Amino acid sequence: MTNFLWKRRHIISLADFTPAEYENVLQTSVSFQGVLSRRTKKVPTLQGQVVANLFFEPSTRTRSSFELAAKRLSADTLNFSPGSSSLTKGETILDTAKTYLAMGTDLMVIRHRSAGVPATIAQEMDRLQAGVGVLNAGDGQHEHPSQALLDLLTLCNALNPEQPTIQDLQGKKVAIVGDILHSRVARSNLWSLTACGAQVHLAAPPTLLPKAFADAFAVPLRPEGSSAEAAITRRVYVHWQLSSALKDADFVMALRLQKERMSDHLLPSLREYHQRFGLTRDRIKHCAPTVKILHPGPTNRGVEITSELMDDPKLSLVSQQVASGVAVRMALLYLMGGAKHKTSSPITLEADRHL
Amino acid sequence: MTNFLWKRRHIISLADFTPAEYENVLQTSVSFQGVLSRRTKKVPTLQGQVVANLFFEPSTRTRSSFELAAKRLSADTLNFSPGSSSLTKGETILDTAKTYLAMGTDLMVIRHRSAGVPATIAQEMDRLQAGVGVLNAGDGQHEHPSQALLDLLTLCNALNPEQPTIQDLQGKKVAIVGDILHSRVARSNLWSLTACGAQVHLAAPPTLLPKAFADAFAVPLRPEGSSAEAAITRRVYVHWQLSSALKDADFVMALRLQKERMSDHLLPSLREYHQRFGLTRDRIKHCAPTVKILHPGPTNRGVEITSELMDDPKLSLVSQQVASGVAVRMALLYLMGGAKHKTSSPITLEADRHL
Amino acid sequence: MTNFLWKRRHIISLADFTPAEYENVLQTSVSFQGVLSRRTKKVPTLQGQVVANLFFEPSTRTRSSFELAAKRLSADTLNFSPGSSSLTKGETILDTAKTYLAMGTDLMVIRHRSAGVPATIAQEMDRLQAGVGVLNAGDGQHEHPSQALLDLLTLCNALNPEQPTIQDLQGKKVAIVGDILHSRVARSNLWSLTACGAQVHLAAPPTLLPKAFADAFAVPLRPEGSSAEAAITRRVYVHWQLSSALKDADFVMALRLQKERMSDHLLPSLREYHQRFGLTRDRIKHCAPTVKILHPGPTNRGVEITSELMDDPKLSLVSQQVASGVAVRMALLYLMGGAKHKTSSPITLEADRHL
Repeated sequence: MTNFLWKRRHIISLADFTPAEYENVLQTSVSFQGVLSRRTKKVPTLQGQVVANLFFEPSTRTRSSFELAAKRLSADTLNFSPGSSSLTKGETILDTAKTYLAMGTDLMVIRHRSAGVPATIAQEMDRLQAGVGVLNAGDGQHEHPSQALLDLLTLCNALNPEQPTIQDLQGKKVAIVGDILHSRVARSNLWSLTACGAQVHLAAPPTLLPKAFADAFAVPLRPEGSSAEAAITRRVYVHWQLSSALKDADFVMALRLQKERMSDHLLPSLREYHQRFGLTRDRIKHCAPTVKILHPGPTNRGVEITSELMDDPKLSLVSQQVASGVAVRMALLYLMGGAKHKTSSPITLEADRHL
Repeated sequence: MTNFLWKRRHIISLADFTPAEYENVLQTSVSFQGVLSRRTKKVPTLQGQVVANLFFEPSTRTRSSFELAAKRLSADTLNFSPGSSSLTKGETILDTAKTYLAMGTDLMVIRHRSAGVPATIAQEMDRLQAGVGVLNAGDGQHEHPSQALLDLLTLCNALNPEQPTIQDLQGKKVAIVGDILHSRVARSNLWSLTACGAQVHLAAPPTLLPKAFADAFAVPLRPEGSSAEAAITRRVYVHWQLSSALKDADFVMALRLQKERMSDHLLPSLREYHQRFGLTRDRIKHCAPTVKILHPGPTNRGVEITSELMDDPKLSLVSQQVASGVAVRMALLYLMGGAKHKTSSPITLEADRHL
Repeated sequence: MTNFLWKRRHIISLADFTPAEYENVLQTSVSFQGVLSRRTKKVPTLQGQVVANLFFEPSTRTRSSFELAAKRLSADTLNFSPGSSSLTKGETILDTAKTYLAMGTDLMVIRHRSAGVPATIAQEMDRLQAGVGVLNAGDGQHEHPSQALLDLLTLCNALNPEQPTIQDLQGKKVAIVGDILHSRVARSNLWSLTACGAQVHLAAPPTLLPKAFADAFAVPLRPEGSSAEAAITRRVYVHWQLSSALKDADFVMALRLQKERMSDHLLPSLREYHQRFGLTRDRIKHCAPTVKILHPGPTNRGVEITSELMDDPKLSLVSQQVASGVAVRMALLYLMGGAKHKTSSPITLEADRHL
């Protein structure tokens, strides 16, 4: 465990995450995978701490994953449900967050349909010197860091089950297929995959993948303390059809296609989308023989991917992604909780084993 | 405790439950009633285990009962709320269940408005060799096993408070009154009561009680290993009016009448239903002098039963049913959890007493 | 800790609370503030007990506060959500409460849009000799005792941070501004503040503050065992404009203005309300130089109070109110739990420190 290096109070975006930080999250997550393979899957790390899940946008999957991660760290959890909230009574989002702060929340996990809300709340917490960590669980079309980090863990586990490290991703080809433009999952994955040395190939119709979009991710990454020459070049490639994107790909990530894209006139029909960009047994043949498929879920079977591929355990990493999610979220809450209390000696999982 | 006999991973239907299994559930539940009479009502049996309550159909009463049962076994609970779920995003029910599996769920409690959903999920879990137990908490008009099992505990407790056993039910007359045809509660109770030797008298208007319906339950039960001669004959009788059904009855179960039966044109009016099949002080006089009344709740006072009878502690077992529910659900989760881990030595409650 | 004096099983209204009871709640809350300042903010006081939050009226803020208070006392919590409840199936409120009783609930926290519901449930629990405590978390326009008690703690903490006592409030001027007539918060605060010797000045338009309303609170309070001469005179004053109410005030409580008052034709417009009764930097100058502002939340910024005042840490006690809420609710559940079990020796927090 090398979490003594961890200095980030909030996790809002992966844009400036360094390889050392990815490695730290990865190794901490691997430790928690060890915890989760035991019969008693709990550690007392966050006992007496409060994790508030402020999901202004409804969610079952991600909220349950964070809730379970918090409970397995022995934290108490508070769930905010937008339907019955003070927001309908005219309260501002910042006032809602400050209310949860005043109740004694230690960590806030925030999802909102507008980009920037978690960042704004994090700034306000810092202005108030609250010592509270904010984790972005998806903000509009901006970012979804914990999803990209669980994808990272899933990829590294697949490449090197014994001793996964981000170096395993070096030079690997990852294709991301689907509604890139509107996807917070794609954005966060672009930052993480390129920082870890993978080459990312994006495939979508032009309406869902403007050329300028990909260019925005081509900025080099200069890890703290490194020289300009040591900067990591981010490798992103754009494809407006599927076959070249899939060619020799080590991994394919299908993105969820939201039905509202039809009414936005960005796509003619689901059927045409599936014909041109849906993953099928036939198209997968362009990929490397060892290719694995990921999907952040929930899946529209028969649109982004055929049912047959989804259910093929030799191809699909979808279940592994969900399982990785709990371990990664435990790791993130643990690292943020440790950063909060600035313990001089690192909190080790060894000590936690005595639950 | 004799749970070393328990081999059933899922509890979907009572159709093939044997008397030995009913007795096992009963005795385990009685042990948990002992736990619930202590000041600290918790045992560490399922510590570190996750019970997911997947209630695709909204419910407060049953969900709270299962949630409390799980918490008292020290399990962590995840609640799925259909309103804010991925189902509205087009995910299939099986994919939702597989997501909860991948998160690390050990036991799934499932309610759905369609008959067969829990069975389908259980089959899928087995196909995936997931080792997860599925408990049917009510599927359409099919079954509601934990309700019938809590009714069984309530009846046996009433007959023999000191040492309840299913043999106490032998030859007892139980009348079930109301919307038999659409009731999952009636179906599950028909299996359990007849298997334990009670004679079951059904009373309803013909639109809610076709003759062929009752015949379907007249199949003999052949417990595993028993000869055809030792098969238990299920005794079910049909009444299209109330008085003969109630005559000398030891117990009367009123079923909830759902208002939508009126719009289905199966009943002329609530008032006429109450006049012909509602339980009143006067009609109860046909029963045995020691008669007790049950109702699965929620009750329409003045329709299925008068308020006066509901509130008469000498007659009504309604509160005891709710209380039995927590003990029975603890027992079911405990037995299924034990079956999951196939412990060589039985988990005893004695060991659990050292919380 | 002097909770051995506590005899009240239910907390429904503050109308007959004595100064000794307020002091008891205050000192117990101060002890729990000590617990909440520790790293591990939990005590095992209510371990194995069940606190049911029956919020028939939706709420996030108050429900979360009670839920957190219960969890920090190590209780198990059950949450009732009206949307998915049996109430929509025609069940009476009393039957719902009795169902939670039968499941094993020890303490019920109840919010309902109709005045009197918590009192009715408390009476029913007593009639059934259930030994269950009922806490009113807001009933219609009647009372909201825990809000007034957290306001009391907040005021005494502000007056005397080292050793707060209700005697600090003696003779202090507290202005309550806003929709007095429809406010359960104002009603409960009127009872508590006057009983502790503060003078309460009410300010509102006449439509929201009938003269007869204030007179109803002018009844003297005769604490148990005291002579008629020792009765506490409650001091309540009515203002139909703001300046005289604010003059030399030590504290100003702004009440939330509900938008439906406009459609009731009780107010011409939000803008006119703000012009006449909104708290602004300028108007606050009439108050004592050390004045502090309270608001029960959620706030309509720019209506009841300007954003600038809300965010001024030298003036606003809003965050302290929320923080006090958790400590006060822990104290109330603790006192009620102790009253329930009638322990001969007082449960002390000292013993609880060994979690």
